[in-house]
Amino acid sequence: MLQLHIGSKNYSSWSMRPWVLLRQAGIAFDEVLVRFDSFAADSQFKRSINAISPAGKVPVLVDGALVVWDSLAIAEYLAETHADKRLWPGDPHQRARARSICAEMHSGFTALRRHCPMNIEARLADTGALIWRDQAAVRSDMQRLVQMWSALLQEHGGPLLFGAFSIADAYFAPMCMRLASYALPVPPPIADYVQRVQALPGVRAWIDGALAEKDFRDFEEPYRLRPIP
Amino acid sequence: MLQLHIGSKNYSSWSMRPWVLLRQAGIAFDEVLVRFDSFAADSQFKRSINAISPAGKVPVLVDGALVVWDSLAIAEYLAETHADKRLWPGDPHQRARARSICAEMHSGFTALRRHCPMNIEARLADTGALIWRDQAAVRSDMQRLVQMWSALLQEHGGPLLFGAFSIADAYFAPMCMRLASYALPVPPPIADYVQRVQALPGVRAWIDGALAEKDFRDFEEPYRLRPIP
Ligand SMILES: N[C@@H](CCC(=O)N[C@@H](CS)C(=O)NCC(=O)O)C(=O)O
Ligand SMILES: N[C@@H](CCC(=O)N[C@@H](CS)C(=O)NCC(=O)O)C(=O)O
Repeated sequence: MLQLHIGSKNYSSWSMRPWVLLRQAGIAFDEVLVRFDSFAADSQFKRSINAISPAGKVPVLVDGALVVWDSLAIAEYLAETHADKRLWPGDPHQRARARSICAEMHSGFTALRRHCPMNIEARLADTGALIWRDQAAVRSDMQRLVQMWSALLQEHGGPLLFGAFSIADAYFAPMCMRLASYALPVPPPIADYVQRVQALPGVRAWIDGALAEKDFRDFEEPYRLRPIP
Repeated sequence: MLQLHIGSKNYSSWSMRPWVLLRQAGIAFDEVLVRFDSFAADSQFKRSINAISPAGKVPVLVDGALVVWDSLAIAEYLAETHADKRLWPGDPHQRARARSICAEMHSGFTALRRHCPMNIEARLADTGALIWRDQAAVRSDMQRLVQMWSALLQEHGGPLLFGAFSIADAYFAPMCMRLASYALPVPPPIADYVQRVQALPGVRAWIDGALAEKDFRDFEEPYRLRPIP
């Protein structure tokens, strides 16, 4: 059985991607939750994950003797080993575009990632309004995101980025969570896409897991002293 | 004919990857050099690249009507369209590992990337020594890099990361350039690997292009007031 090692569901945006992908595609797997205590060398988290992956980060997919790390490499591995699931769009040109936006996400949107860390259970609309007012780089990341999604939704007519569910939607699911938590302003078609992603059973299951966790971690909480009571 | 749009060869580490891949694999392509003047919205560079790619960055591959952006997505597209070239390792497990290290590179090694920007013609050994002394995060990125390369070189017996040339070597070629320019300390087998990468004809051709450029750009030069005379 495939084993996916993930971090805390409330915070781990990278872990969310392959988990949602597996779940939404209906690929069976065992989840190994490695809760965040801290990222210090002697933390429980680092000791657990260093024991299985040389990169020392989650997510990690274990398939028998094979260890695959990094969310994008895991997505490619699943696409290859489960060709019947069409995790990438079937059309070669659309597939190349899907890979372009996922790779762009993988190394980009740094301002949005830095200022708006994923925090599923938090409601940070006021914080989001301050970030929106003060951080030009976040506004510019958002502009690119809205332009990207709008073009794809228009071209394929929705409901998801390439019509049917694909790796691309799993890859941007944490972005949808951020847009919601920080209440960043987006045009209605984008808000609708965010809602559709959040309503996918695979995403819903992750959100439920995150809400059940109640593991408040200071080092992942630049904006809160304590959880919602 | 494939068209690859790239930035200045002396500075553009992301552009170097697919260019070296194409050249080293012997895939014919036209190069479109979009020299860096600045990354401001009204720069020549931004206006040129915005006209062809929605992400507004180099590299961009144009294949007829198809525009593929981001170095990793370009590599995947080339691997798919040139299966005979075996750009990824042929063995599925090794392929998954090659993808893991490329994806790790794509979003990681941020301290090394920030402190040691690629600058092929520069000789920055003293700067490198200061960085090495003062930047723990750079040392820790280097430790991971050395561990990664050592394990692969040992397992496959060299000469390259997965034995024969693959996307992985193209992907780490800019890192090899940085290690050399900043003279960062590495064990002998790693120094040898760096030299072997620099001696690959595809890499050599890029280096020659970079040295011929002589386009000194302040915004890419945190450590120099002027070029080598
Ligand atoms: N590019 C990696 C990033 C993984 C990553 O940074 N994961 C975080 C948690 S969301 C982590 O494990 N951090 C531990 C650390 O930085 O030491 C991926 O896509 O999987
Ligand atoms: N993840 C992208 C990164 C591309 C990138 O950042 N390219 C730089 C030049 S090396 C660029 O075009 N920068 C222009 C800008 O940031 O506006 C890739 O792998 O292609």
